[in-house]
Amino acid sequence: MTATRVELRVIYGDTDQMGIVYYANYLRFFEAGRGALLRERGRSYKDIEALGFQMPVMEAHVKYVRPARYDDLIVVATRIDAVRGASVRFVYDISRGDEAIAEGTTEHACVGPSGRPTRIPQELRDLLQAPRGV
Amino acid sequence: MTATRVELRVIYGDTDQMGIVYYANYLRFFEAGRGALLRERGRSYKDIEALGFQMPVMEAHVKYVRPARYDDLIVVATRIDAVRGASVRFVYDISRGDEAIAEGTTEHACVGPSGRPTRIPQELRDLLQAPRGV
Amino acid sequence: MTATRVELRVIYGDTDQMGIVYYANYLRFFEAGRGALLRERGRSYKDIEALGFQMPVMEAHVKYVRPARYDDLIVVATRIDAVRGASVRFVYDISRGDEAIAEGTTEHACVGPSGRPTRIPQELRDLLQAPRGV
Amino acid sequence: MTATRVELRVIYGDTDQMGIVYYANYLRFFEAGRGALLRERGRSYKDIEALGFQMPVMEAHVKYVRPARYDDLIVVATRIDAVRGASVRFVYDISRGDEAIAEGTTEHACVGPSGRPTRIPQELRDLLQAPRGV
Repeated sequence: MTATRVELRVIYGDTDQMGIVYYANYLRFFEAGRGALLRERGRSYKDIEALGFQMPVMEAHVKYVRPARYDDLIVVATRIDAVRGASVRFVYDISRGDEAIAEGTTEHACVGPSGRPTRIPQELRDLLQAPRGV
Repeated sequence: MTATRVELRVIYGDTDQMGIVYYANYLRFFEAGRGALLRERGRSYKDIEALGFQMPVMEAHVKYVRPARYDDLIVVATRIDAVRGASVRFVYDISRGDEAIAEGTTEHACVGPSGRPTRIPQELRDLLQAPRGV
Repeated sequence: MTATRVELRVIYGDTDQMGIVYYANYLRFFEAGRGALLRERGRSYKDIEALGFQMPVMEAHVKYVRPARYDDLIVVATRIDAVRGASVRFVYDISRGDEAIAEGTTEHACVGPSGRPTRIPQELRDLLQAPRGV
Repeated sequence: MTATRVELRVIYGDTDQMGIVYYANYLRFFEAGRGALLRERGRSYKDIEALGFQMPVMEAHVKYVRPARYDDLIVVATRIDAVRGASVRFVYDISRGDEAIAEGTTEHACVGPSGRPTRIPQELRDLLQAPRGV
């Protein structure tokens, strides 16, 4: 499955005094990637919430390959790796030009209108499993 | 009226590549000050929300006097300057030892259970106008 | 002078539990606006730092008109209001479609290679005072 | 080895519109834990930087067990798991009362005055391997 790509400009507020992007902010970049992937499939995470579902993060992993710096134009490439019964995994690659910056994964549960973990409903499953742009 | 004082430790994630606290983060420090002031009066902003009220910020002003740096132990001194019919103003002074770091104000509206701006209810007014620790 | 416009997508990480963008994050948006203005004039704030100068924020003011929300595509319009001997003021308007979201200003000092406030050097002054796109 | 414990108060700015702490902010809490551990051993990360060394994060992992919420007083318990030739691993447990909130690890390289990865110098190794409070 092709990855969704979104460009982000690193701002001063993303950096820390080491002169590089603060390590927590890569999880913000990942989130921007997830949002772009859903929008590319014609929906927003907002739509998922409007259906009464939430997809809270259960686990996150980041491998920092090379630091991103102020004013860099980075690309977050996001794809869905696995849609299971009640969870889904996103995979991310962040790059700057042809240099790898970071990679990582996030695991999400599906929480239903009751506020409890639940199986991913078919409508959401179709969206998550759709090939790109469909 | 005496100000409420709360101590905060500056973390790496608060700084930017200038080696000082990023300017937006002072508004986080101010919020920590507001929370401490309400707790000192025996309530939390959470209690205000539980009553169906919110106090969104309408205006904020920060004057940056001297930069805070990584690992600094800073003190946020917060007081309420004016409780008007439907709004309240908080005033903040941030210091490190006897050095002034920043000062500022925030103006808050009162939004009621209907989601609209409303007069501050008496219970909340009593809380906001109470002398320290009462 | 025409304002520089930059589009930003609001992410989940920008919001707070009131369901709207957290008030400190507007200062991040303003910074993205400043960066875009300088880039439009053919330079980056990084270039200013490379010349040995910094422009730390001395004062910031935000007026919150209407909340921005998750997934909003907002526009930050930024212009330079006044270039004085040793300081410069930026003015910002954030909007979503034809709705005003927030407005504000930031005042910046000029700090030279010595680490002290200094007059804005001619090269930087020309950049800041240039009409749009020049 | 006993863990270092530090208390943190969750502010509004840490939450997102799901009404819980935004997932990236746990990495800020982890950093506060690392800082507290070093301070408890009589040094600050600032001292390490003053020696010309940095310990950038190479990898981070977070498992989100139970959401932290606004105004929660959480405890970050931090310990050092392994000091290897040129890297060190920190382990974190975040709790609220007797409830587990999150757990995770960070792997750090050691970068020397040359800006390159290097072996951890003996002085720093002694600090990292010291039993608690020594």
